[in-house]
Order: sequence, then C-alpha cells, then structure tokens
Amino acid sequence: MSTATPAPAASTSSSTEALHQLDRQRIVHPYLPASTTERVVMTRGKASSLWDTDGREYLDATGGLWLAQVGHGRDELADVAASQMRELEYFTSFWEFSNQPAIELADRLVRLAPDEISKVYFTSGGSEGIEAALKMSRYHHYRRGKEEKTWILARERAYHGIAYGGGTASGFGMYHDGFGPMLPHVEHLTPPWPYRRDLFDGQDCTDFCIAELERTIERIGADNIAAMIGEPIMGVAGMVVPPDDYWPRVREVLRRNDILLILDEVVTAYGRIGSWFAAEHFNVDPDIIVTAKGITSGYFPLGAVLMSEDVAESLEADSGFPMGYTYNGHPTGCAVALANLHIIEHERLLARASEIGGYLLDKLSDELADLPRVGEVRGVGMMLGIELVADRDSREPLPNPQAVADAVRREHGVIVRDSAQGLVLSPALTLTRDEADRISAAIRAVLTTTHPDGTIGS
Amino acid sequence: MSTATPAPAASTSSSTEALHQLDRQRIVHPYLPASTTERVVMTRGKASSLWDTDGREYLDATGGLWLAQVGHGRDELADVAASQMRELEYFTSFWEFSNQPAIELADRLVRLAPDEISKVYFTSGGSEGIEAALKMSRYHHYRRGKEEKTWILARERAYHGIAYGGGTASGFGMYHDGFGPMLPHVEHLTPPWPYRRDLFDGQDCTDFCIAELERTIERIGADNIAAMIGEPIMGVAGMVVPPDDYWPRVREVLRRNDILLILDEVVTAYGRIGSWFAAEHFNVDPDIIVTAKGITSGYFPLGAVLMSEDVAESLEADSGFPMGYTYNGHPTGCAVALANLHIIEHERLLARASEIGGYLLDKLSDELADLPRVGEVRGVGMMLGIELVADRDSREPLPNPQAVADAVRREHGVIVRDSAQGLVLSPALTLTRDEADRISAAIRAVLTTTHPDGTIGS
Repeated sequence: MSTATPAPAASTSSSTEALHQLDRQRIVHPYLPASTTERVVMTRGKASSLWDTDGREYLDATGGLWLAQVGHGRDELADVAASQMRELEYFTSFWEFSNQPAIELADRLVRLAPDEISKVYFTSGGSEGIEAALKMSRYHHYRRGKEEKTWILARERAYHGIAYGGGTASGFGMYHDGFGPMLPHVEHLTPPWPYRRDLFDGQDCTDFCIAELERTIERIGADNIAAMIGEPIMGVAGMVVPPDDYWPRVREVLRRNDILLILDEVVTAYGRIGSWFAAEHFNVDPDIIVTAKGITSGYFPLGAVLMSEDVAESLEADSGFPMGYTYNGHPTGCAVALANLHIIEHERLLARASEIGGYLLDKLSDELADLPRVGEVRGVGMMLGIELVADRDSREPLPNPQAVADAVRREHGVIVRDSAQGLVLSPALTLTRDEADRISAAIRAVLTTTHPDGTIGS
Repeated sequence: MSTATPAPAASTSSSTEALHQLDRQRIVHPYLPASTTERVVMTRGKASSLWDTDGREYLDATGGLWLAQVGHGRDELADVAASQMRELEYFTSFWEFSNQPAIELADRLVRLAPDEISKVYFTSGGSEGIEAALKMSRYHHYRRGKEEKTWILARERAYHGIAYGGGTASGFGMYHDGFGPMLPHVEHLTPPWPYRRDLFDGQDCTDFCIAELERTIERIGADNIAAMIGEPIMGVAGMVVPPDDYWPRVREVLRRNDILLILDEVVTAYGRIGSWFAAEHFNVDPDIIVTAKGITSGYFPLGAVLMSEDVAESLEADSGFPMGYTYNGHPTGCAVALANLHIIEHERLLARASEIGGYLLDKLSDELADLPRVGEVRGVGMMLGIELVADRDSREPLPNPQAVADAVRREHGVIVRDSAQGLVLSPALTLTRDEADRISAAIRAVLTTTHPDGTIGS
C-alpha cells in the first residue's frame, strides 16, 4: 500500500525536481504548453493555505478552481467520506436503485432552491451537468411534440464547461478552434458587461441586450428555440456582474416565447456570492439550474441539476430520461455534500461570504484606485474580478495578464488567476480579514510596477 | 452533522416506504419513468453482497455499473481517501499546478499500458474522457495543419457515454432521438457481432467489417477523417466480443490512412477481462485509450485518458491543450486509484478474473445449453453476456429482456442487468465460485419459464 499513501512533504529540492521531471514526462495538463517547464506540486492544504513540496506556503485566493467554499483539509469531510465508503461506497442510481445520502441530499437541495425547483438529477461535475441540461431542454420540448425547438441561446464570453455541448455554448474562440464542427443550433448573444460600453452602441446595457434577444428570437423563430443558458455572473469572462434588471427582463422575454431558462450556477451556487443560489440574488426563477463545485467544496466530484416540476414531468414521461452518468447519485459524494452544506449553514458562511467578500472588494477598490492598469474592480460576495487595462481612458485590455498572476504567486505567495482580461478571485468563504489584506497588498505591489505592454518591473 | 452521517439500515418497512416516497418526489433517475414506482434503496455493500433498507441481501452480479473490480466496502480504500483528504483533499491541476498522487498514478498507468502509451490526461469519468479523446483527435490533426481531418468513425450499437460528443458516437437511436441535432461528422459502421450473421451478407464478419471500413474511408476521404473510436468488447450492445483478427486488421487500415485509433476501455481496462487493458488482449496498439470505472472500482469518480507521445506532442504545442475539467488530477481520486491498483495487483485479480470468469462462462454455457431462450453465452474474463432470443433458429431477439433481469433480482436476489438484447454480467473480480454458482442457478430458474413473447411464469 506504500504507493497509495501520500508521502510527507519532500524536504530536499532534489526530490522536488524528480517529481517535476516525472510530471513533465507523464502528465498532459490543461492549458500548459511543453515550453513551460515550471511546476508547483502541492502537498498540503489547510483553510486558505497551501504548501508545496519545498514547504513553501501559499495563500489560495482562487479556492482551487472557485470551489473551496469551506476551505482545505476539513477533517469532518474526510471522516464522512471514509464512513460512507465503509458502509456503501457506491452502487448505481440508474433505474429503480437509490441510496439514502442521495435521497436526503436531493430533498435538502430542493428546500434550499428557488420555489419553482422540485427535482434533482445528479452528475459528477459541471461539464456533465451542462450536457444534461442542454439535452433536457431539447428533450422537454420533444416530449411535448415541439420537436423543432432545438436552438440554444448562449452569450459571447460565456463558459459552460468543455464537453461538446457546453463547449459549443461557451463563447470564446479558443474553445471552438480545432475542435469543430461543433454542436449545431447554438447562437451567441452579447454579454451584459457594463464596463465594455462599446458593446452596446451607446445604449443602456440591459436595453441593448433585451432588444438583441427579441430580434434573435424573431429571426430564429420562437418555435425553433429550446432554451437560453447563462451564468448569472460570468466567471471565465472575468466575474462580469450584469445590471440588476438584466435577468428579470431576460426571464420575461423567454417565458413569453416558451423558451426555457437554464442558469449555469456551477460557480455561483452554495454561498459563493452570499446566497444559496444566484437566482435569489438576481430575483429570477430558472427552469433548470446546473450546480457542482461548491456543493462538496471540491472534496468529491459531484454535481446536481435542479429543475422545475414541469421539466421533470417531461423527462419522466414514457420510458424516462435516456441519459445517465455512471456516478449518478454517488453515495459517498452525496454524503460529503450533505456534510459540506451542513458546515456552510452552521458556520454561517453565506453571511461571511458577503461580509468578508465586501471587505475585500472595498479594500481592493481603495488600494488599487490610483493604479493606471486597473480598469474596474467588481464582484459579489466571494467572487471578485479586477479588469486590467493598458489605458484607463481607452479601456484597451492589458496584454498578457497571466504575467501579473504569475508574479503575484512567485513574488508574494498569493495564488490568483488571470482570466480573459483581468484577475479573478474566489477564496474560501472562511477567508480572514488578514488574508484579505495580504491578497490586496500582493496585487497592489505587482500592479504598481506593471507597464501598459504587460511587462512587469520597476 | 446528523444529516451527513448515513443512518443505520431502517428496520421497519414504514421508514423504507418514506424513503421511497421522498425518492419519487425529489430525484429524476436515469432511465426510470414516473410510472415505475418501485425503489430499491441500498444501504450496505461488502464484497459482492448488497443490503437494502429492509435488510434484504442481494448478490451484485453487475459490480455496480461494471466497475467494482475489488468489491464493495473495502476499508483500505476508505482509509486512503480519508488520509488524502486530511492532507490535501484537492487543488487544481490546470497550468503548472500538480500533486504527488496524480504524478505517481500517471507514471503507474503508463507503465501498465501498451508500449506506445506515454502520457496521461485526467478526468472524472468515462463521458468526460470520451469528449476529451474526440477533441484530442481533431486537435492533433489541426495542430499538424490537417484541419479537414474532423470525421469520427464509430459503430452501430456502440456506447461512448452521453455527453454530446460521445452521445453522438454511441450507436443507438435512443441516444439521439429528441437530443439533436447531434455533433456533425460522425459515421457509424457495422459492429463486429458474429452471432448476428445476417449483418454480414454471408461473408466472414471481419472481412465484411474491414471492406466496409475501407469503402467508408474512400467515400469520406482519408484526408477528412480524424479517428475511429470503439469499445474493444461492446458493452451496452451485450458484451459483444469481436473475432480475434478484427482489431489488428482495423488498426492496419487506420494507420495506412493516418487515422487515429481511440479505444474506449472504460469498461474493459484494469482487470475486467483478465488483463490491464483489452488492447493487450486483442494485440492492438491504440493512439488513445479512454479509461475510468475500474481505475478506482467506483469509490471515487476518476478517469484517465492515455495517449501516445505523438498525440501528446500535438496537444502540448503552442499554448497547450485548451480543455480541462475542474477535478482534473484530483489528489484524493488519484490516491484511491493507486490503492485500488495495488489491491488488483497484490490480490492477483487479473488471474482471478480469468479463472472465475472462465468458470462462470463454462457454468452458464452448460446450465443454459438446453434453454430455448438462450441464443449465445459469451464473454472474456468477468465481462459476460447472454443473448436472449424468442427463437433459436431465427435468432429473433426476445422482447423485453428487462422482465428477465427484474425477475432474477426479485425472485432470487441476484442483480443482473438487461442490455440491448440480453443479460450482461460484470461481477467484482473477487467473486467466489459459490457466488458464480448462485448467479447461474438464478438465471437458469427464470429463463426456464421465460416464454417467446418475453413473459415469465410456469
């Protein structure tokens, strides 16, 4: 079993180098070219801290990939996982088979969710959930005899995972180029991104988006459109927060045209923005909500697709919904999720996300206010974005924001992520004020010496 | 935390009924219509046994969904999962970030895999892996300037998961109807299914399939085809075993035409058929192997896509491979996989799969030999299929094989699965001879009273 238990943190840089070499030799990492030889091998995590094989400590301001709601290394979750694995690690939830943690979790999720939500379909993560939601929306209309309602409306700069359906709905060229032909019948609209005022022809952001939505529906035909999918706050685009009236007005147009609304809450749900679901925050009632990440804080790959009774009824008609992932309703994943939600509730992490997230937003807004590379600081709860520019007046994006993120990590031991045109932050909801201060100081230090061409240095 | 720890098995049928009702109210199960009100809620598993909320014991002859290589309830795996979660439950493996269990597992997999395999890309399961493999095959050609090589060859009655890419490659109408339009540029060929001799126009099965493959390549054009994907043994189709010369001859044709071979070994890898990979068994060297399921015996959702150096080189060129799943390289999943592979090796489960699988195949062949509903009994290792027919001479499929599977479970407490036109078996590799005897007897008892119209009863 010696291969299975994690070795203690390596004490010499020679063993670190051996690991790095083996990694380069054996693993294809997402988004990592062969020309990048640097590796950071993490060995330990506790709350918002991480340690690598050389014992260096980092402050994790990304919460893994935006999911570590309760923070790293929680013994309670390890205990629950082990105890469930000993009892019933897994059995299928296809057909009439079920298990107690899955049933309890589904009930808990429906009780937490907006009123319209009544049923749950389990997955192992966000990409699986998006594929399911897109298929559900087409199938719903198909089962109601409206076979032509197949088009999906999405937005430019959206991110909906990278399976073929979600990858098509994602609105960046890099997720399409070289992978196509992509899924047919997907249309991309303008994102509600107030800072990028040039997108809206001088009009109000929401007015423009709604008019474009109406025009698009008229062009494609309401009878041909299954659903619109969107992230309540666009994550990969840079934590882009829409105007308050955007979602309610979109919802009204969709309902009038018998088009389902799918909210991709893979990032926003389970406390990330200070509420259980962003749907509440934006006062909108979707037909389908896709969730994952924060549901287990990343301790176990699990996702849940929540839906209205109306959608569920279509899926459960005739011979049922002909689509299931192997780990659907995984007992261990569901037990971990229940324990994770329990922590979020009992440690009052929703309120904490709002409070400390608000503190961090204020802090960043103050400390970065005078820096010419900072176009906008924005966010809701623990989901924050800093849009970087070469020039504040023209709002021209800063080239290569990755160099900024790399410098923040290498020079200050704070892990932030560059995404699209800026930096994004999504720390654990348990972040402390001191940690928020440290994040802000590290970013300020690097941005103070960042030049308009994206290079860094005094 | 009381909601998080699994309750002990319910002792009264009233609490069972309450759980069933909550399940019906809250969960959309795959492939389960609202009209089916029966539920079986499992609470405990040990080796090949399962117990439901009423304390009834079942013999699990499906190994969950064909994945429980080491059997249920292994304390060693629970211990490893908990210990890794306490140390570093998760951090991203995107970009230059990595972790020790992922590096060790990647190295272990490459050492176990066929010679051509040199690198690993991690996922959380089979469907994610298939999407990645399809995209990798197109991207490989794209990066080499062969942008037109986009077509994917698959087979009728294939199953490649149910995300949009794999769902398109899957060769059953039920995975397409109501979900379309599906991914463009996917072509389905005839499956190598010797028992269905009518598929081959009186020719030898392999000869027919190879000639069709050559014709198809000529028609679409080798310059337009990225890859062919196939399960070495077709699972959902009913554990369909191809002739020995099928894969080597397919491989030769593909290589001659610069078309990648993707083997979907989600079911067959990690001991299921008595070898680490079916590629060895069939003496074929694929460019990409998609694996999941048995890699952790289902204790944790994890998958690994294995690839040749040639493919990896394309993916790591320029800015790298722009596709990553959140849980890529999950430290806990990788630690569980290492421990699981350790068990498979140290308990000699490959040899055991061949030995007990062979025993079960012989037993079924003998005991079912005289039954008019049994068309063929076939299998390799612990992957067995029984093709059911209304009539042995015409080989007309038996209607509603689900009724047979249901009766085997309800009347004899043995869980088997109906799939396509028959029953499929894929028990834990730790199955005992006594258990094999019990499986065979239960199936015989039900098939003895199964009528040509699919009804059951004396």
